Amino acid sequence: MENPSSSNIEKLQQDCYNEWMCLQAKRMTDLKRALTNGEKNEGELRELIRTVIEDFEDYAGKRSEHSRRFSSNYFAPTWNTCLENALLWMGGCRPSSFIRLVYAMCGSQTELRLANFLHNDNIIGLSMALDETHGRIDVGGESMSDLTAEQLFKINELHMKTVQEENKLTKQSATLQEDTADMPIAVAAFYKERIGEADVEVERALDKYEEEMARILAEADKLRLTTLTKIVEILTAVQAADFLLAGKKLHLSMHEWGRLRERRRLEACGGEPGGDSGE
Amino acid sequence: MENPSSSNIEKLQQDCYNEWMCLQAKRMTDLKRALTNGEKNEGELRELIRTVIEDFEDYAGKRSEHSRRFSSNYFAPTWNTCLENALLWMGGCRPSSFIRLVYAMCGSQTELRLANFLHNDNIIGLSMALDETHGRIDVGGESMSDLTAEQLFKINELHMKTVQEENKLTKQSATLQEDTADMPIAVAAFYKERIGEADVEVERALDKYEEEMARILAEADKLRLTTLTKIVEILTAVQAADFLLAGKKLHLSMHEWGRLRERRRLEACGGEPGGDSGE
Repeated sequence: MENPSSSNIEKLQQDCYNEWMCLQAKRMTDLKRALTNGEKNEGELRELIRTVIEDFEDYAGKRSEHSRRFSSNYFAPTWNTCLENALLWMGGCRPSSFIRLVYAMCGSQTELRLANFLHNDNIIGLSMALDETHGRIDVGGESMSDLTAEQLFKINELHMKTVQEENKLTKQSATLQEDTADMPIAVAAFYKERIGEADVEVERALDKYEEEMARILAEADKLRLTTLTKIVEILTAVQAADFLLAGKKLHLSMHEWGRLRERRRLEACGGEPGGDSGE
Repeated sequence: MENPSSSNIEKLQQDCYNEWMCLQAKRMTDLKRALTNGEKNEGELRELIRTVIEDFEDYAGKRSEHSRRFSSNYFAPTWNTCLENALLWMGGCRPSSFIRLVYAMCGSQTELRLANFLHNDNIIGLSMALDETHGRIDVGGESMSDLTAEQLFKINELHMKTVQEENKLTKQSATLQEDTADMPIAVAAFYKERIGEADVEVERALDKYEEEMARILAEADKLRLTTLTKIVEILTAVQAADFLLAGKKLHLSMHEWGRLRERRRLEACGGEPGGDSGE
């Protein structure tokens, strides 16, 4: 993939995404197997966790390579559903949402544990109500209710820091967006007799904008990677595997739920998916 | 357009955008005519300016109506080019970019005035260099170099306030995005055996997310409207007309330049525009 020409960049970007989604589905199965087969051996699980983190590092590296000149695609990819694009932050999920996921898993597992406890004590009414919230009991993820106060403190510290870093990148992107309403682009737009007339200076400015956005995308991917790495360092091996499994399931599910919602709307409408009807 | 059913919402959204782009092209011509025909009569110009602002108010009202349940479309519209989507903030341009446009016009006009002055004094070398930067001299927009210190002070104050308001909305949207990685969505994703299995609670949460995003979109449109209104209040009638003309030209040009860049990439690639090749 050295020196990919502009002619196949878009194909490369989409192939790279498709490979990534397939790999996530595979890792989901790997993590599930490792957790349910009782491979709770610290060393083996840590090895798998390292592999999962390295997958993301590889993916981020490829994205960075493919976005150097054509980064716009990554900020509202055509391969995403519109639900996913509405949820996008710098071409991906918010790093802080990884931390929210830790909290969500921890909270739901504590609830489940309570439900199990009540179930064992035959206080059926309340436990049934709690069971119904989640559909099942004992399907994994139990480790997340064992988060210690020290772990929760570290996670909270990481949350604060991550939000700060996110805000820095959000500001940088805001400045770049504002810049496009300045010279030379705005001024060229004003002085052209014909709307959309090609202009070397504008092209250069837009290329530079896309390059800068590619840099921010790479920074955002780095922040996502750092946040993931720090979370799995704070968690035990089993907790980390449960957390990564939850992350993969959430990403894959969101993609499918987005498609389901789009399909439902299109069926109601009798239309065709995708395509820009132009003006 | 009362009670539009979900079956035609997407068509309505796109038609609404197409009408808006056509209206912008018409207003561009109206503003140009009013400025070049010497209709510099304060009252007439202010009337046209009011109409242009009202156009935006109507458009925002329609968007709000159409986004109430299906707002995701507005955060990365398929009718935009990917360049425009990469520049998007809450379904449109950043309100602060209107202010950057005032500064850009003011700066470029001051440069042009200097070029004209040098031209008259026959210091050809330097004036030619400045001419080349913009292509032409005396094509309108001159009023923007007449901004007084008081006007610039007010514009600067408005800039600070607008950025603050933008940041508030950015934070609200960040919180909503983070929420999707929490209960009930993340937890449902974890407990489903099959990825993408329909879930009433998830559907309800996603509907709520889209409704909240629709509210933020309406707030953002309100901020865009307020910022525009305050800018034209600070400017003289001629300046306001020049500014609105520059804004229309920038928006229309950006759409065309985005298409040009996409077409160029697709031609190099030999591919078809639009469409999601799926996985």
